[in-house]
Amino acid sequence: MGLSVTILGSNSALPTSERNPTAQVLDASGRFFLIDCGEGTQVQLRRNKVHFGKIDHVFISHLHGDHVFGLPGLISSFGLLGRTKDLHIYGIADLETVLLPVINYFSRELPFNVVFHHIQPYEPAVIFEDSIVKVTAFPVEHRIPTVGFLFREQPKERKINKEKCDFYGVPLRVLPKLKKGEDFIRDEGETVPNDKLTFPPPPSLSYAFCTDTRLNSSIVEAVKGVDLLYHEATFMSDQEALAHRTFHSTARQAAQVALNAGVKQLLVGHFSSRYRDLSPLLSEAQEVFPNTKIAEEGKVFEA
Amino acid sequence: MGLSVTILGSNSALPTSERNPTAQVLDASGRFFLIDCGEGTQVQLRRNKVHFGKIDHVFISHLHGDHVFGLPGLISSFGLLGRTKDLHIYGIADLETVLLPVINYFSRELPFNVVFHHIQPYEPAVIFEDSIVKVTAFPVEHRIPTVGFLFREQPKERKINKEKCDFYGVPLRVLPKLKKGEDFIRDEGETVPNDKLTFPPPPSLSYAFCTDTRLNSSIVEAVKGVDLLYHEATFMSDQEALAHRTFHSTARQAAQVALNAGVKQLLVGHFSSRYRDLSPLLSEAQEVFPNTKIAEEGKVFEA
Repeated sequence: MGLSVTILGSNSALPTSERNPTAQVLDASGRFFLIDCGEGTQVQLRRNKVHFGKIDHVFISHLHGDHVFGLPGLISSFGLLGRTKDLHIYGIADLETVLLPVINYFSRELPFNVVFHHIQPYEPAVIFEDSIVKVTAFPVEHRIPTVGFLFREQPKERKINKEKCDFYGVPLRVLPKLKKGEDFIRDEGETVPNDKLTFPPPPSLSYAFCTDTRLNSSIVEAVKGVDLLYHEATFMSDQEALAHRTFHSTARQAAQVALNAGVKQLLVGHFSSRYRDLSPLLSEAQEVFPNTKIAEEGKVFEA
Repeated sequence: MGLSVTILGSNSALPTSERNPTAQVLDASGRFFLIDCGEGTQVQLRRNKVHFGKIDHVFISHLHGDHVFGLPGLISSFGLLGRTKDLHIYGIADLETVLLPVINYFSRELPFNVVFHHIQPYEPAVIFEDSIVKVTAFPVEHRIPTVGFLFREQPKERKINKEKCDFYGVPLRVLPKLKKGEDFIRDEGETVPNDKLTFPPPPSLSYAFCTDTRLNSSIVEAVKGVDLLYHEATFMSDQEALAHRTFHSTARQAAQVALNAGVKQLLVGHFSSRYRDLSPLLSEAQEVFPNTKIAEEGKVFEA
């Protein structure tokens, strides 16, 4: 149970020999969600021992190459490995328009379906939901239509208080109802309130992914109170004008979003290739929001 | 002077965490020719410290993803780095058809021209020539139209025999003509034959690249006597039937081509991901053609 994210790449557009473009995989209680897919993602998945067969959903934030160019190779390799399950890809409509001809040319006999789901990038909207997690896309502010993603665990079941259940003589068949919050009605007609027989459910965790974007107050609303926030920090504050001009953020701005949104933990990433040593970016963010970490490749972070 | 090839990737279709798909760069006296461009090529170029600005020509053998999927990222990065020189790409006509929409979408404001040159894959043909090198594409036998590439240095100038030139009183202004093979005519009208005044030119070296292909006798003709031959060896001989069915070669077959063509040195590559240890493939090839080497990533081989 829980949410943990593995960073596959967190560099900005120009990959270096050390750092890959954007991609990460979120493990939501054993369901794996791929978020962005820069060139080299399939190799990064292998290096981090993420089983290809566990990935059924891919979310693409926007159509810049450093977030997309790994898709044709990933899809091709899924095919060569004999995948038969549908693969669901979520992105703005243009993603299908531009990617489909490439898939059709290079992977003519794909043994599985690629199902495109179109995101409209102008209003927050739930784009995926199952029993474990709900995914909302929300607009951020970049040069082209771009969304962030909020992954929120569904409400969990209440925990059984075994001692009290024994005391009140609760039969086993009633336990599933108690977990869902129902009261227990004894044979004599007496009602035992649910909260006498159960403990509150564990919290539903949340993870938000925001890249690429300028500092934008609507993001604060979208990610309010999340357990873990990934926010881009392409530049240091001395390049704030450049960040604004290129629709990116500084490390300090990322930390301001985290602070204003009252999140529990911040990950910064999408670093400009100009920074070899990332510790100054970390320090800058930590001055504003101490519980910040660098989204280092190969590292796993728990929500 | 000379020809040397740096291996950027030599795995077959499925990349592993250790081995990249096909790409290599040939250094022909300081001109750099990129041959195939699998996913991750731009990072491999960086790792091997090949300056992006030195690459003006890219040769694509065939349109399987593991030979092509690195192109959009490479072109995009060239653009981000402010390249202004034309980039020449050589491949069958479909390459332009399928790649151009991707470039146009993701790299809208490219500051340089991508110039496509269409290869017809059915007869050997010279596809590039300058003062240093001549490149011939020749058909190989794969599931889809595929070519190999032969790079041959142009004939070089004869070397001046300084001692003899002094003896015959050859003026400096005549030396360029001697290098080109002309005789020297003295003021008195006497002719001194060129070979009395010069040494033969250094040999013109040659490199041939053959992947992906079945064993095919026409390849032997195409690569006859080259100094260095790269030939695919996807499988070991115990998988010869599979190699044939999938239009690939075994290590022994690659060595047979090298032997029959009388080449000086053989590199084998394009290994199936099933082989973690490549030494059995090397041994198998060396039984037939002893001067064989594994096309190991990051290694440089001289023609």
